[in-house]
Amino acid sequence: MRTWLLPENIADVLPAEARKIEDLRRNMLDTFRRYGYELVMPPMLEYLESLLTGAGQDMGLRTFKLVDQLSGRTLGLRADMTTQVARIDAHLLNRSSVTRLCYAGSVLHTRPSGLHATREPLQIGAEIYGHAGLEADAEIQELVLACLALAGIAEVRLDLCHVGVVRAILQSDVRAQSDEEALISLLKTKDGAGLRELTGDYAPATRAALLALPALYGDGSVLAAARAALPALPGVVQALDELQALLDVAGSATVTIDLADLRGYQYESGAMFAAYVPGLPNAVARGGRYDHVGEAFGRARPATGFSMDLRELARLLPAVERSSAILAPWGRDNALREQITALRRAGEVVIQCFPGHGREQGEFDCDRELVCEGGNWVLKNLS
Amino acid sequence: MRTWLLPENIADVLPAEARKIEDLRRNMLDTFRRYGYELVMPPMLEYLESLLTGAGQDMGLRTFKLVDQLSGRTLGLRADMTTQVARIDAHLLNRSSVTRLCYAGSVLHTRPSGLHATREPLQIGAEIYGHAGLEADAEIQELVLACLALAGIAEVRLDLCHVGVVRAILQSDVRAQSDEEALISLLKTKDGAGLRELTGDYAPATRAALLALPALYGDGSVLAAARAALPALPGVVQALDELQALLDVAGSATVTIDLADLRGYQYESGAMFAAYVPGLPNAVARGGRYDHVGEAFGRARPATGFSMDLRELARLLPAVERSSAILAPWGRDNALREQITALRRAGEVVIQCFPGHGREQGEFDCDRELVCEGGNWVLKNLS
Repeated sequence: MRTWLLPENIADVLPAEARKIEDLRRNMLDTFRRYGYELVMPPMLEYLESLLTGAGQDMGLRTFKLVDQLSGRTLGLRADMTTQVARIDAHLLNRSSVTRLCYAGSVLHTRPSGLHATREPLQIGAEIYGHAGLEADAEIQELVLACLALAGIAEVRLDLCHVGVVRAILQSDVRAQSDEEALISLLKTKDGAGLRELTGDYAPATRAALLALPALYGDGSVLAAARAALPALPGVVQALDELQALLDVAGSATVTIDLADLRGYQYESGAMFAAYVPGLPNAVARGGRYDHVGEAFGRARPATGFSMDLRELARLLPAVERSSAILAPWGRDNALREQITALRRAGEVVIQCFPGHGREQGEFDCDRELVCEGGNWVLKNLS
Repeated sequence: MRTWLLPENIADVLPAEARKIEDLRRNMLDTFRRYGYELVMPPMLEYLESLLTGAGQDMGLRTFKLVDQLSGRTLGLRADMTTQVARIDAHLLNRSSVTRLCYAGSVLHTRPSGLHATREPLQIGAEIYGHAGLEADAEIQELVLACLALAGIAEVRLDLCHVGVVRAILQSDVRAQSDEEALISLLKTKDGAGLRELTGDYAPATRAALLALPALYGDGSVLAAARAALPALPGVVQALDELQALLDVAGSATVTIDLADLRGYQYESGAMFAAYVPGLPNAVARGGRYDHVGEAFGRARPATGFSMDLRELARLLPAVERSSAILAPWGRDNALREQITALRRAGEVVIQCFPGHGREQGEFDCDRELVCEGGNWVLKNLS
């Protein structure tokens, strides 16, 4: 057994990468703050029931379980922070006004979501509670784009979808509703043949709508095609209107719309999005509406938000430059110590060299040195 | 089952507290950086053997265990980050020069260390590898005091001890060495009667030294008393010299010395300290030498460092003031949006008010408002 081996899909973050992540983390949290979001820090561990409340079945499979020695009950290690933040809004803050919250912290997954995916994403995100209108979704979308811009990413593709379309179609037809699970599964995989077979004896309008969905994928023109192909149910019209409004505020991002994208069908309740950027095959950020999430915590409040993995995003940033630093000799000389303290206060990195050691390696580039000349400590350039 | 209940000794951190913690975290990491420490981020989960390498038995009891679905092996949730950072130095960075590393992250404990102690401390710390001399210990001690000063704490008590004293005494006497475990246990509890009984047939010099230890507690004068009461073994003399040197650089901190304090005897190797501050019954920071920690990872390098719990320390800070913020109406008006973007870039918090909602509660105090006057968006004071 080599004690330095780490479990699969688990990794240390070394200095150069850690600095990129830390810089990005601070910039994003500062951006959230300037939009009026308040920081919260939910715990790594909770009772399993609390963590899985309102979450899909896949979350149960992704969550590590532990026995609590104090209560004998089963604990879960958070695999996602969204439910936790909803619990804080619903139960702890319990405000009647609009509440904007943000968070950043590690989550853990029993299995990686892909071959090279980490099992320990550093999740960062923001949520708005208490406003059902599309303005909240628009602000979240704007915030995602602002965060990606911080990471230097200008080229963003936003995939929009809306669970309201399929929900409205199913709710309009009892027959279809009884097959909900099978239909969702077929729509997710865009399995046209399977859909045709399952819907063979459905009402013609319902069947036509369900069969049309997998092809309703593409740029903004999909919305017009959907209005033509789908029944004008109130839920469908509202969903398409909301998608149009989000399309209008997407700025320079390229938008694609997929009305059969139902990945969050179990727990999302309205417009949803995934953001893609060059260089990363998977979505870099995901978000949307999940209005009933607070229900299990005593209060169903409108909710919309997004989250992303800082580690993944930081990989796209260029390597950070080595920082300029000042080398100083070791010594308890008061004048030297005062000089070092003053330089550090001014933001300089000052590295005291221990006796018997040379210049350090690592992320600091010592380009100046503190030397004593005629009784005074002065800075000299190092070549 | 109330889904909002958290496990015992596990808590959410709400906005006001989260901001204190975040501010302190940034200030400390920035201070580490200005001393030349590089940030690393070890994982939450490792194979249990790696995590417990070189750690005491109590660490095994404090560590949550999990089964890894990918390997079938036992994983541990880190209960401490010191060993992880030593692994990074020894195996991943593998530099020959002095290496300064720092870290900040959650650790988890199966049981709280006290009635009100959290089971999820936010551990922050710094380590120096590759320098065996006391200069490294002195720098670490200086850094601890600088960190406490950042938290506004001026009144600090440093408890110093040194495992070298007891080690040298035991190594000088085979008879005593065979009772090592029992002796350490008696010394830890300062059990004079037990010590007298156990050492009844020891060599008189060894017995006298061991019996003297529990009383060698107090201010700097303890060092002179120890030189008089203990045998002048090279290890004893060196340990007392090192304590004297640390005493000399303690600045304004009050120092107490306890030669029978052996809490870290299993894994520490030299001078150790604990820092106490008014308002907290337990040590706010702990550190010391543990030179052999990298051995299991392939390289025994001199190592000294410290760590503290940011959550605990943040409790001592005064409540943060509510931040001044600007209220803005919702709208897609370009002039409004540009104005908001410019204000946010300048560091202002600008909260867009959604239709139908009033001013928000929470940590932001909206004292100004963006209003449209004669076609221009201007800032007005709110009373």
